[in-house]
Amino acid sequence: MREGELLALIYNRSTDLRAAFPQVLVGPGDDCALVGVGAAHPGVLLKTDQLIEGRHFTPGTPLDLIARKAIARAVSDIAAMAGTPRAALAACALPPGYEQRRADELFDACSRWSRHFGAPLVGGDIASFATDATPLTLTITLVGLPHPSRGPVLRSTARPSDHVYITGRIGGSFDAATGMGRHLTFEPRVTEAHWLADTLGPQLHAMMDLSDGLGIDAGRLGAASRVQLELDVPRSCLHDRARQHSADRNLVLQSVSDGEDYELLFTADTAVTLPPTCPLTGTPITRIGRCLAGEPACYLLLDGERLDVSGRGWEHT
Amino acid sequence: MREGELLALIYNRSTDLRAAFPQVLVGPGDDCALVGVGAAHPGVLLKTDQLIEGRHFTPGTPLDLIARKAIARAVSDIAAMAGTPRAALAACALPPGYEQRRADELFDACSRWSRHFGAPLVGGDIASFATDATPLTLTITLVGLPHPSRGPVLRSTARPSDHVYITGRIGGSFDAATGMGRHLTFEPRVTEAHWLADTLGPQLHAMMDLSDGLGIDAGRLGAASRVQLELDVPRSCLHDRARQHSADRNLVLQSVSDGEDYELLFTADTAVTLPPTCPLTGTPITRIGRCLAGEPACYLLLDGERLDVSGRGWEHT
Repeated sequence: MREGELLALIYNRSTDLRAAFPQVLVGPGDDCALVGVGAAHPGVLLKTDQLIEGRHFTPGTPLDLIARKAIARAVSDIAAMAGTPRAALAACALPPGYEQRRADELFDACSRWSRHFGAPLVGGDIASFATDATPLTLTITLVGLPHPSRGPVLRSTARPSDHVYITGRIGGSFDAATGMGRHLTFEPRVTEAHWLADTLGPQLHAMMDLSDGLGIDAGRLGAASRVQLELDVPRSCLHDRARQHSADRNLVLQSVSDGEDYELLFTADTAVTLPPTCPLTGTPITRIGRCLAGEPACYLLLDGERLDVSGRGWEHT
Repeated sequence: MREGELLALIYNRSTDLRAAFPQVLVGPGDDCALVGVGAAHPGVLLKTDQLIEGRHFTPGTPLDLIARKAIARAVSDIAAMAGTPRAALAACALPPGYEQRRADELFDACSRWSRHFGAPLVGGDIASFATDATPLTLTITLVGLPHPSRGPVLRSTARPSDHVYITGRIGGSFDAATGMGRHLTFEPRVTEAHWLADTLGPQLHAMMDLSDGLGIDAGRLGAASRVQLELDVPRSCLHDRARQHSADRNLVLQSVSDGEDYELLFTADTAVTLPPTCPLTGTPITRIGRCLAGEPACYLLLDGERLDVSGRGWEHT
């Protein structure tokens, strides 16, 4: 099953779910779920995510970077709701005969990186595959708290006429020649998300993180919010690596499709004026488009054309 | 790495962890972690657990039972703290080319069973392995709430002179000939755990669930609580299947080692008198031994011998 279909499947059931289980404050389909844990409490954000050798990292990637990526990806989803990471769990499935020294090293790295991101490892499970030639698989679950005043920032609450922004730059995250690149070392935008929620409050309408590609992710935000996005991505938003990789003609298109950017995509009221960088971190904040009423989709304005890029990116299978 | 060593590793770090991150109310090493989520809130219970084809179930096991086992195992860990399941997350890694119809069926089953146990599925991740001949892997994370008055019941708080009890019967959970058996259909003891916490309050001293075998699990409770357990397990505590499987001489020893019982092991003050069954469910409650001051371990009284059974059970590798 493609992940898009899975998301649609479970998203369509969310209404039903919330009726039967009132603790489900935000159901499947957003970057995180939000689960109520008692009266007078805003609930906890929850995210689970898998990293599989040969799919999300190449064999031979240093264990430290594997652990970092697994945890940072989930932290990025907490950031996408403007939340704060609180605790992490790690489940690891190892190839048979995996060296204990390396298993220790992997768990140490998970422990270290989860602390680094403020979400200490509080539990785990370790198991060996019974069959040979199985890939290392690391599943991280993150628990977080929503923003205390703004609450969770959903991807489904953009409004027609909103301005559309991204943090940082996109494209060229994965170096196909080496398997390395920013996809292993990115900084989840927790501080930037908090600053946006603090500063914009209710004028911060919708947010998500860019994991699969700006095109497909913006298309998902449009579908969830029932708005159309029209993007005009300036070259300044493209990462240096992306500039090296592509001929100029395809540069923007390629960067919109690359994925693994782990930047924030957000929409805000048109009354909002934002500085060119986050004052706390210096991360660029760039207006890249607007929302429109109309059939949900994401269009890219490029060399006088208006291209539907809603399918451009990584569709999980 | 053997799971016992992993647990020791992360357990030894817990004190340090709680000093650096005050939200860690109960760290790694118990059935669940307990993470604080704000002042005046008792915190949330967290558990993650993996189910791997060829290790935790045999190929050909119906998907419905795979989903049920994965979720029920984690629910059993919430029960072991006397908690209440609140929400579930599922991460599934599929062999390449796995049929969409079957992936749908698996997620439907996860959704159905998680609702059945009161912990609706609020998020998930699905990924395909890139390499052939990889086993189906299902990772479940459960979030729960601790008992409102008794609080979380730890495995580390048994006291010398406590009486030791189990719910239900043990042994013969896994039928080696067919791969079927109670390990796929057990009922997590949530109701029984609540009843114990409601009824005994602070006199319910320690509790855990039996997943790897009474011998090894009781040894772990002893190690966590720094007490010695001395068990005299009556034949009435052995499951019918166990009686069929073993010659009489080895019956008790085998049942103590089988694992996958998912019953509660608990200790209570000697002043406590318990009925022979839980009045809410009819599940047997049997006193099987006592705690003693002394070197942590679990001894079994059998035919006039006193056998150290602390190593008897399933040691995860």
